[in-house]
Amino acid sequence: MAVTPNPRICVLSGGVGAARLLAGVTRRKLAPATTAVVNTGDDTWIAGVRVCPDLDTITYTLSGLVNPHTGWGIAPETFSALTMLRRLGGPTWFTLGDRDIGLHLYRTDRLRRGEGLRSITRDVVRRLGIDIDLVPMSDDEVATMLTVRTDDGVAEVGFQEYFVAMRHQPHVERIRYDGIATARPHPDARTAIAEADLVIIAPSNPFLSVFPILELGDLGDLVRDARDRTVAISPIVGGQAIKGPAASIMADFGLEPSATSVAQLYAPYAGTLVVDHRDGALAGDVERHGVRAVVMDTMIADPDRSADLVDRLVQVVGSDR
Amino acid sequence: MAVTPNPRICVLSGGVGAARLLAGVTRRKLAPATTAVVNTGDDTWIAGVRVCPDLDTITYTLSGLVNPHTGWGIAPETFSALTMLRRLGGPTWFTLGDRDIGLHLYRTDRLRRGEGLRSITRDVVRRLGIDIDLVPMSDDEVATMLTVRTDDGVAEVGFQEYFVAMRHQPHVERIRYDGIATARPHPDARTAIAEADLVIIAPSNPFLSVFPILELGDLGDLVRDARDRTVAISPIVGGQAIKGPAASIMADFGLEPSATSVAQLYAPYAGTLVVDHRDGALAGDVERHGVRAVVMDTMIADPDRSADLVDRLVQVVGSDR
Repeated sequence: MAVTPNPRICVLSGGVGAARLLAGVTRRKLAPATTAVVNTGDDTWIAGVRVCPDLDTITYTLSGLVNPHTGWGIAPETFSALTMLRRLGGPTWFTLGDRDIGLHLYRTDRLRRGEGLRSITRDVVRRLGIDIDLVPMSDDEVATMLTVRTDDGVAEVGFQEYFVAMRHQPHVERIRYDGIATARPHPDARTAIAEADLVIIAPSNPFLSVFPILELGDLGDLVRDARDRTVAISPIVGGQAIKGPAASIMADFGLEPSATSVAQLYAPYAGTLVVDHRDGALAGDVERHGVRAVVMDTMIADPDRSADLVDRLVQVVGSDR
Repeated sequence: MAVTPNPRICVLSGGVGAARLLAGVTRRKLAPATTAVVNTGDDTWIAGVRVCPDLDTITYTLSGLVNPHTGWGIAPETFSALTMLRRLGGPTWFTLGDRDIGLHLYRTDRLRRGEGLRSITRDVVRRLGIDIDLVPMSDDEVATMLTVRTDDGVAEVGFQEYFVAMRHQPHVERIRYDGIATARPHPDARTAIAEADLVIIAPSNPFLSVFPILELGDLGDLVRDARDRTVAISPIVGGQAIKGPAASIMADFGLEPSATSVAQLYAPYAGTLVVDHRDGALAGDVERHGVRAVVMDTMIADPDRSADLVDRLVQVVGSDR
């Protein structure tokens, strides 16, 4: 594409990493033409309410409600409902804050009335003053299930149970996206990918955040079609995940935790991989997978640095077409 | 009955008045043999959770959680979820506190899994250390609907909307218990009435709290059968309701708001009516309805006075058999 002042951007998004990238998009006034297609494979029912961890993390980050220390949840927050739930013997392994519950109640009530997650999310985004369109990948439920090995043996558990209750410690033998075969991509997600000038695969967990999107209906095919305008940002820097269990799961699957392995995973989808300057030496290995390597600072600790990164991505993709 | 040390007591219960009476039962160690059959006609769905105002008021009172200033709700309490719901444009006319929501989430989650309100309530009671068995009148949903006249004309609204949002100000033209024809009394409610040595109709609103119980299946017939061991406590003292709209609804229905009218309403069910000493002059009028009048102090502002009242009721019913 030519570098235009208002490129249409579509960000395939998980949670914290995507949220910080999108905060940069907002900073650069690219937001009105930006759509985040958000993984909902982490979504789950807890205490009867529908919790959407990736959507919520992005929502709280972009509305300024997020807890800056954790990168997820709200601060300040109270935990009165959880205290009562604990007293009653209800589920308390997942930390539901009271303000957070307010959103869950709002969403769950509308879901129970038969409304779609997409339209509910649109209203939440509008009410909280967010200027990026957040599109859940589907209105249908998909559940990321992990077969894990613990001291007690092998068991299949839901993502949040693995991630929160088990603190993502167990060895992962298999990942399965329950419901993916019948779930339909939301039409707005399809449009956002197909019409984007720049598709960004956020620095999110490939197995837990990005592949649920890529394996949903024809979304993966649409990204393949957009491969030369798709840029992935490696979530692995210096052999470690920026956040969460991406590196350990790669190792569990027999992959070296590195930007090179990320290139291998994303090669069918992304023509370009952004590699952190600390992994600059891997650029040659990345390109052996047929993926152009672009080395830059990917540590997006604050929205200004994230905005700089987004500027560079727009230029990078614009420069070769 | 003979006055036994452990009479089996069944209290037909609404909200605040019944809760205070039951607090007296607890004080007198009559609790293990006491069952409260609780009106659930006020129950409603708010923000996707099942709210049971009468059950909750009794639960919070007997567990010591209740807000002593209101007689309902919890204190101390936070309102973080409500603040978020308001920001999102969700329903906020009903004041849902965060600790209160903790209970609603627990209950709603189990209801959604197909469990009955009776067994859920049993677990709540056990967890909160309550020593009286609280039996919802039914596991089936009944909704008290009021036809009200306002400046905008005539409309039918749910009880909570009338009571909370409209502050029980409108003229009431009609009261209907939606679902009462098909709802089934809980078997434990039937047993509690049939086997009680003393049935107490709490000083609750006859139209909004007691008749939903009496008109449910054969519960009214069972109370008629127990008429000579049933004592009602007048919720009208000095021409006014102790709490809420009982007096104004009586007037709307063409009844003088008085203990005499209460006697008329309950004559088929209760052989005895407890009249406050301030209404002692009405005893003769009460008895003209074929109901024995017993004059005593019915202002049960604290559990000790409530306990004294319960002691007297046990003696009163025991004395004439």
